[in-house]
Amino acid sequence: MTSPAKFKKDKEIIAEYDTQVKEIRAQLTEQMKCLDQQCELRVQLLQDLQDFFRKKAEIEMDYSRNLEKLAERFLAKTRSTKDQQFKKDQNVLSPVNCWNLLLNQVKRESRDHTTLSDIYLNNIIPRFVQVSEDSGRLFKKSKEVGQQLQDDLMKVLNELYSVMKTYHMYNADSISAQSKLKEAEKQEEKQIGKSVKQEDRQTPRSPDSTANVRIEEKHVRRSSVKKIEKMKEKRQAKYTENKLKAIKARNEYLLALEATNASVFKYYIHDLSDLIDQCCDLGYHASLNRALRTFLSAELNLEQSKHEGLDAIENAVENLDATSDKQRLMEMYNNVFCPPMKFEFQPHMGDMASQLCAQQPVQSELVQRCQQLQSRLSTLKIENEEVKKTMEATLQTIQDIVTVEDFDVSDCFQYSNSMESVKSTVSETFMSKPSIAKRRANQQETEQFYFTKMKEYLEGRNLITKLQAKHDLLQKTLGESQRTDCSLARKTVFYMSFTSLENFKEVLQE
Amino acid sequence: MTSPAKFKKDKEIIAEYDTQVKEIRAQLTEQMKCLDQQCELRVQLLQDLQDFFRKKAEIEMDYSRNLEKLAERFLAKTRSTKDQQFKKDQNVLSPVNCWNLLLNQVKRESRDHTTLSDIYLNNIIPRFVQVSEDSGRLFKKSKEVGQQLQDDLMKVLNELYSVMKTYHMYNADSISAQSKLKEAEKQEEKQIGKSVKQEDRQTPRSPDSTANVRIEEKHVRRSSVKKIEKMKEKRQAKYTENKLKAIKARNEYLLALEATNASVFKYYIHDLSDLIDQCCDLGYHASLNRALRTFLSAELNLEQSKHEGLDAIENAVENLDATSDKQRLMEMYNNVFCPPMKFEFQPHMGDMASQLCAQQPVQSELVQRCQQLQSRLSTLKIENEEVKKTMEATLQTIQDIVTVEDFDVSDCFQYSNSMESVKSTVSETFMSKPSIAKRRANQQETEQFYFTKMKEYLEGRNLITKLQAKHDLLQKTLGESQRTDCSLARKTVFYMSFTSLENFKEVLQE
Repeated sequence: MTSPAKFKKDKEIIAEYDTQVKEIRAQLTEQMKCLDQQCELRVQLLQDLQDFFRKKAEIEMDYSRNLEKLAERFLAKTRSTKDQQFKKDQNVLSPVNCWNLLLNQVKRESRDHTTLSDIYLNNIIPRFVQVSEDSGRLFKKSKEVGQQLQDDLMKVLNELYSVMKTYHMYNADSISAQSKLKEAEKQEEKQIGKSVKQEDRQTPRSPDSTANVRIEEKHVRRSSVKKIEKMKEKRQAKYTENKLKAIKARNEYLLALEATNASVFKYYIHDLSDLIDQCCDLGYHASLNRALRTFLSAELNLEQSKHEGLDAIENAVENLDATSDKQRLMEMYNNVFCPPMKFEFQPHMGDMASQLCAQQPVQSELVQRCQQLQSRLSTLKIENEEVKKTMEATLQTIQDIVTVEDFDVSDCFQYSNSMESVKSTVSETFMSKPSIAKRRANQQETEQFYFTKMKEYLEGRNLITKLQAKHDLLQKTLGESQRTDCSLARKTVFYMSFTSLENFKEVLQE
Repeated sequence: MTSPAKFKKDKEIIAEYDTQVKEIRAQLTEQMKCLDQQCELRVQLLQDLQDFFRKKAEIEMDYSRNLEKLAERFLAKTRSTKDQQFKKDQNVLSPVNCWNLLLNQVKRESRDHTTLSDIYLNNIIPRFVQVSEDSGRLFKKSKEVGQQLQDDLMKVLNELYSVMKTYHMYNADSISAQSKLKEAEKQEEKQIGKSVKQEDRQTPRSPDSTANVRIEEKHVRRSSVKKIEKMKEKRQAKYTENKLKAIKARNEYLLALEATNASVFKYYIHDLSDLIDQCCDLGYHASLNRALRTFLSAELNLEQSKHEGLDAIENAVENLDATSDKQRLMEMYNNVFCPPMKFEFQPHMGDMASQLCAQQPVQSELVQRCQQLQSRLSTLKIENEEVKKTMEATLQTIQDIVTVEDFDVSDCFQYSNSMESVKSTVSETFMSKPSIAKRRANQQETEQFYFTKMKEYLEGRNLITKLQAKHDLLQKTLGESQRTDCSLARKTVFYMSFTSLENFKEVLQE
């Protein structure tokens, strides 16, 4: 017979099984806790999202109101302008147009942020409320399902437990039945051995007296052997019965084992997975997706609307134009800028001659004067052309200064991650640049010089215009055939001399 | 001689000229006033622009602070979470990722609006200040130039006035000289006629007494004629001189007239125009352009930065995914979700057989049982497949409900011009739609049905798994060659009958 140390006792096996099952039960509880936690986190997240958008809606509304106020503050000003016609006039000027578009843009943004706020409150938040409701409801239902699955699993484990115990019981019975049978077999052997010895001891005695004794003994031996045989048969039957029961029990145990492992596997691999994504998460991600897409749609529409406004402003900025503004201004104040009537010749006391008289004695004097004017003009023109060139070059320099492209502020939006860096980037952008100050000084110097040249040029042009006019008239008249009759006869030479001198002076003065 | 009525008197001509000049002077004053006004308007506009951007900078800063607060409020919450590891874990879940990106976006916008505000204050406003300074300075200089031009013009007009008066004077002189000359010529004619009559009367007297008388008379006549002739010559000379002076004066008048008209034309057509666009507007439009482009650059950079953030969110929203979240969750809580050890066969009291025993007498019973399981399974599978189909169809219906694309809010940004319309458009967008309420109810109904089917399906799967496991083991064992010795001899039929019955019951129960 093998020693008990060599194989596990019932108690040990049961104990091991119990711990194994305890562990599983613990896991199942943890799983439920985990689902609960996820549910709480989800509800919390959705609550946060609602709070977030509620607060953001306030902020957007606030922003919108401030923008509205800002726009109104300046629009009211223009509205209050008594002379509406005057206001209209001004609007045709390109800078005023830019200004109006700036104000429109602010109004537009104000309106868009109101809309945004409204969408947050009346569309996005309600969505999150719904998702939250749905999630809660689904988790409740999912937990029921999960609980059901776990209960079934526990049932399977309990079944396994009981079939295992049955196996132990029947196996124990069959073992004890087997040992009892073995005992009976031993006794039978002993009985048979005893009767053989007695036969050998009886041979030396007289025939008559020993014969009766033998018969008695034979009778006793036969009956005891019979008894033993009966017992052995009974035990054999008992053993067979128990042995069969044990086998069946073990088979049931083995089948239950198989079923249990399969169920456990199914639960962990399929049930849990299905429970999470086909019950807990049912529609959650999709609904969240729609809510957030609503947010994105709103933001992108806001962006687009704002961008359209900026395009309009950019267009107006491109159309900032001095020349056309000048034209508009002069049309606007036509009566102030339109040239007056030409001055006409007024004959005195019915003086019949209204043309320049170029007969002798004044003729040669006029001829001389015309030549003098001509030469003077050519000198003046050359000089003034020089002045003009310098003036225009200076103007170009100023243009170059005032059109330098220094308006890109992209750098300001390239942050290192610390917020401090923002300040530094920005303050660097415009004023702090020493180049600017230098440029300003330079610009004003140039400007000063430009105006000196401008005045010089205009004076020159002024003189040239006058002399040119006189010269042209003289030339024209002298060129013409001399119809005019000055009804003049003699004594012209004397006058000539002095008049020509006097005119020469005049020419020099001018 | 012609009557005075027929031609203008000096006074009239002068009066007319005076009014004409007065009108021009008035226009010149108006022109200066007009430039002053434009200057004022310009300064005012630039002042408004500065105020506008100063106020807007405040608004942006305000907005930025509120956004910052909003983000911090929720970020602080997550930071405060004791278990940082847990927080990290949660971040791998796609909805949490979206949430984090939302908060990042708010932080980003907050930062960008601070930058915007900063650019307004430190870049754009200073530019307007400069433009304003420049405009003021330029207008001052321009007015000087304009004044100079106007003075010159007035000088020209005064010159014309004086030469005209000279012409009048000399022309008057020449006319009076002419009339005096005519008078002298009449007297001469009278004298000559008288002397001829006397000669005719003396013929009838004696020769001696009449001779002395004739000589006396002759002497008187001759002297008076001489006197008259002298006078006539003097007057002739005077007239010639004055006539020449008058002609010269008229010529000067005509030349001055030409020069004046030319100067006036030049001033109105060229000078004024140059004054406005080459002096007053010098660099104004260009500088304004740069200032406004700085504004545009800032706004567009803000827009771009915001858009990048929105792209990130959109990407995260696209990645909202239940399946991968489930995977992450199960990895996260691996110890909770990992399947336990397989249950092994535990031999009782050194039981040597660890396999299913399929010899007689149990063999035929097992065979029968295996067949019963098989037929039961095929029925169950067909039934459960049906349930599964229904369940999946219902799931699809729910999917369709929760993935309906109802998140486009473009309409809300299509305003009619009245602000009222905004409200109406928005409130229409989501909640008010009756379709939504209907959809919700419908959804929950479907959901209820889905869960019923889901439970049914899982139960079915549960049973199938167990029976399948038992069936497969039986089939496997019966298929094998029967090595196992159950050391069993007789009396099996009796047991068979009852055990098979018992097992059949078991099969039905399961």
